[in-house]
Amino acid sequence: MLRGVRRVEVTGLSLPVVREGDDLAELIVSAAEVHGVGLRSGDIVVVSQIVVSKSEGRVMPLASIEASTRAHRIARLTGKDPRHVEAILREAVDVLRVRADGLIITETRHGLVCANSGVDLSNVGENNVSLLPVDPDSSARRIRERIRELRGIEVGVIVSDSHGRPFRRGAVNVAIGCSGIEPVLDLRGSKDLYGRVLQSKQVCVADELASAAELVMGNADEGIPVAIIRGYRYRASEEGAAAIVRPREEDLFR
Amino acid sequence: MLRGVRRVEVTGLSLPVVREGDDLAELIVSAAEVHGVGLRSGDIVVVSQIVVSKSEGRVMPLASIEASTRAHRIARLTGKDPRHVEAILREAVDVLRVRADGLIITETRHGLVCANSGVDLSNVGENNVSLLPVDPDSSARRIRERIRELRGIEVGVIVSDSHGRPFRRGAVNVAIGCSGIEPVLDLRGSKDLYGRVLQSKQVCVADELASAAELVMGNADEGIPVAIIRGYRYRASEEGAAAIVRPREEDLFR
Repeated sequence: MLRGVRRVEVTGLSLPVVREGDDLAELIVSAAEVHGVGLRSGDIVVVSQIVVSKSEGRVMPLASIEASTRAHRIARLTGKDPRHVEAILREAVDVLRVRADGLIITETRHGLVCANSGVDLSNVGENNVSLLPVDPDSSARRIRERIRELRGIEVGVIVSDSHGRPFRRGAVNVAIGCSGIEPVLDLRGSKDLYGRVLQSKQVCVADELASAAELVMGNADEGIPVAIIRGYRYRASEEGAAAIVRPREEDLFR
Repeated sequence: MLRGVRRVEVTGLSLPVVREGDDLAELIVSAAEVHGVGLRSGDIVVVSQIVVSKSEGRVMPLASIEASTRAHRIARLTGKDPRHVEAILREAVDVLRVRADGLIITETRHGLVCANSGVDLSNVGENNVSLLPVDPDSSARRIRERIRELRGIEVGVIVSDSHGRPFRRGAVNVAIGCSGIEPVLDLRGSKDLYGRVLQSKQVCVADELASAAELVMGNADEGIPVAIIRGYRYRASEEGAAAIVRPREEDLFR
């Protein structure tokens, strides 16, 4: 291989079924060793929100949720379970769109604009819903600190979730939590091939890393909730994924 | 490494400066060999739009552009060169937003919603603008067919560009052209870990592949316009990236 060639490797890790209270960092470190990839300083660990939510006890039985009048009304319109709708409404600060085909777009307490406030019926067994972590940046930081404690290494951690977007079909994996990595690189002021100074280039590398991770995480039934990304030189930062959320007043599209 | 471990490798390729009429497929095949990575059937070749545009002669001297009254008006408002604005307007079917800080969001003839219709002043030398390829799906197909002709192998090809998005800060690389790869995977009907049938999962793998590629393409001054992605098992398809564009009537956000 030519010297200086840039190469990034993305490796998927399967985990045992995750339960509330599980030490996710320890499961990840063990899985990395069993899979023969190990973990090294400078690696990025991308963890799907569903296993973070499970380890943090963010799974609720539908039977424990009492649906409000508003939830019943939206449930009738969308064909959803009223208790599922109630969980969606509780996680939302704003309901942006409700559509008869079942789509509910909300803004979550984290500022994420996504379907169903990220409240999901998949991969949690019948009659349960999973909620997003309360503070995904803290979740990422705890996993990073615990990996440091267990193995004495410094990694970056991203908590990812699959989100739809306006204008383009299909969901892509994005970073809802992040620790140790500068999430948005500001290249303004750097120069192009001809020495021209760039005016407006900011790149959301945290979302690009999350998207790269989904290439090995694959489909829902395969149980690969973690990816190790090796070879990408990120800028260290204590800024979380909350910095990716565009404040309303800056947002051109609402 | 554990048997059956999923791993995807992303390798960046530098190219010589690309000029109109250059055989991009040949440059890519040679670069892959020089870099020691080669090209194999099943690889995905992600090519930055800027080198595709250059090879297709989609670079114009600003001096050759006569700005209309409307372009002059928007130029005064945004502080842009009126000839740059004129090029932006010619590539657009609709102007969605104009802001005093210089931001112009348009819908291009391809249906892409992006800044400046993708018309760029970077990496084309002083006093020139680059335009997006006329038909990026055809560009991708031509590169794919020419690689097949040169080496007898079947690869997928994506033409990528960096786009901003609503709700989230920072641009990410997306697929504006695509050939050989199913761009949006429809997982509806597949089952989760607990056997529950997924209701609404569509994944835009073409955009995720483009985002993964940017991890090695890096900053503007580094001249790495191509990435080879190896190890990702895509579904073969003749559907292009045009299929990613969400038709207006389906779009919740306008």
